[in-house]
Amino acid sequence: MPSYSERLIARVSQLNTSALVGLDPRWDQLPADVKEAAQSAGGSDAAVMASGFERFCCEIVDVVAPLVPAVKPQVAFFEQLGPAGFTALARVIRHARAAGLVVIADAKRGDIGSTATAYAGAWLAGEDSTAAPFGADALTVNAYLGDDSLRPFVDKAVQNSAGLYILVRTSNLGAATFQDRTSQDQKLFEAVADVVQQLNSSHWPDDVYGSIGAVVGATWPEELNSLRRRMPTTPFLVPGYGRQGGTAADVAGAFDSNGHGALVNSSRGINFAFQKEEYAEQFGPAGWRDAIEAATRQMIKDLRKHIPTGA
Amino acid sequence: MPSYSERLIARVSQLNTSALVGLDPRWDQLPADVKEAAQSAGGSDAAVMASGFERFCCEIVDVVAPLVPAVKPQVAFFEQLGPAGFTALARVIRHARAAGLVVIADAKRGDIGSTATAYAGAWLAGEDSTAAPFGADALTVNAYLGDDSLRPFVDKAVQNSAGLYILVRTSNLGAATFQDRTSQDQKLFEAVADVVQQLNSSHWPDDVYGSIGAVVGATWPEELNSLRRRMPTTPFLVPGYGRQGGTAADVAGAFDSNGHGALVNSSRGINFAFQKEEYAEQFGPAGWRDAIEAATRQMIKDLRKHIPTGA
Repeated sequence: MPSYSERLIARVSQLNTSALVGLDPRWDQLPADVKEAAQSAGGSDAAVMASGFERFCCEIVDVVAPLVPAVKPQVAFFEQLGPAGFTALARVIRHARAAGLVVIADAKRGDIGSTATAYAGAWLAGEDSTAAPFGADALTVNAYLGDDSLRPFVDKAVQNSAGLYILVRTSNLGAATFQDRTSQDQKLFEAVADVVQQLNSSHWPDDVYGSIGAVVGATWPEELNSLRRRMPTTPFLVPGYGRQGGTAADVAGAFDSNGHGALVNSSRGINFAFQKEEYAEQFGPAGWRDAIEAATRQMIKDLRKHIPTGA
Repeated sequence: MPSYSERLIARVSQLNTSALVGLDPRWDQLPADVKEAAQSAGGSDAAVMASGFERFCCEIVDVVAPLVPAVKPQVAFFEQLGPAGFTALARVIRHARAAGLVVIADAKRGDIGSTATAYAGAWLAGEDSTAAPFGADALTVNAYLGDDSLRPFVDKAVQNSAGLYILVRTSNLGAATFQDRTSQDQKLFEAVADVVQQLNSSHWPDDVYGSIGAVVGATWPEELNSLRRRMPTTPFLVPGYGRQGGTAADVAGAFDSNGHGALVNSSRGINFAFQKEEYAEQFGPAGWRDAIEAATRQMIKDLRKHIPTGA
């Protein structure tokens, strides 16, 4: 059974891009026709919004599936709608898997023992998308609770050919509060990084990349470069490109000479591209799918300027 | 509007105990009659298990509501069942609120900006249980992402008279990996503790306790004592009593001379008391409700031996 990283690299090589499209639905920003269709179906507020989220995200999936290797649904936006939101999310994930996309559930879960096992069982379907109720390929995980808290997630990832992305250095301004604290010349995020790299070295000793990734914000290019050296076989997930200020040049250090080693995420910049002046003028309000496609192609082009390609 | 801590203290004073009952349903361990009832209703595996979890947890709620101030559903066990699990969880929370219990959703969420706002909106109903789809009074939160990641949760807690419990020192063995790292004579968990106490000092300057709590494991009694001094107006949530090895004597340091300042959690020891030899013999397999009640009363009695009471 190919590992998560092997499956991901195959998609990246095939499409020649490491662009990752986040799915961050917000009711107030949905296209007018999506809102109207959801409202006309009726139901509770949560049911209406969930229906809009599902339709919008499935349409984004249809637009980007031929262009990018993976999508990253932001679980919180579905969770805020309650059970109806989770029903919509499970369907969006299923739709994306059926379209051939790698799905990374951005849920930032973390706990210990049997509780961590339950979270892993909820999300880490891995290669067989029916092996978990939320059939994702990979999950983002918070390691504050300690190295032993990762074990149940890693076990499930190994078992199901799934992946993890452990929060190492996040993209927000306040990330420094705790992550930059230095103990014996080593910052906290570097200690987390070492635990993650060790997991890859021990579970996938012969592979170019293991399946336990690291979340490293594009807003900290220096750390990105030094973390790449520190974690040579760890795949990265890089948020913060676009709206959070990171550029394609900032993320280049995460990649190897084959153009592998990281996914670069953009969420709002693509989901709501139709609200940007440049695309709004060109495509009009009904052309939101075209705007999403144009913004995705623009991101891919921008990344190719700065990141080595396997070609 | 009374704050979360004021509402909690009123319940603690009324019942004269700080015992917190965790709701940790596990299919394999459910009483036989609960399993059979769930199976006879039919449906998918997830629907059957969710129905069993809902019934079991609602029955526990009915048993403990006259005895303890609060319950703590472990979200992961519901999440592993997918959307059906969340439907069951929302109902369990509603049932517990209707029974007068304070509900702490143990979800260990954490994110930044609008994503954190979405998580807060999902869970932090606060005083009005209908103000969020999962109508909890309080939520456990992971602060690894930084002090700014807490702000949306704190804002919602202030707005809705809800509470938070930030992970400070967890009860697992591996907690030391990251939480004990020392920077300038201050451990990471102490730095998190200082941020939490500061939030209480600034938002509830005149109250005995603020509404931003701290999770501090009972398995580390020395840290519990020193954290109580470090966080004088922070309410504690203390896991690890019973099954994880913490005793009532170990948790005494978390309390003030009025018997306030902390909740002590027991989950498996109460949920599955009917499987313990002492209770199994006394009540038999059909007497699981009686075993749960006896174990709850036993915990309350044990805590009263070591913790000051307001009486």
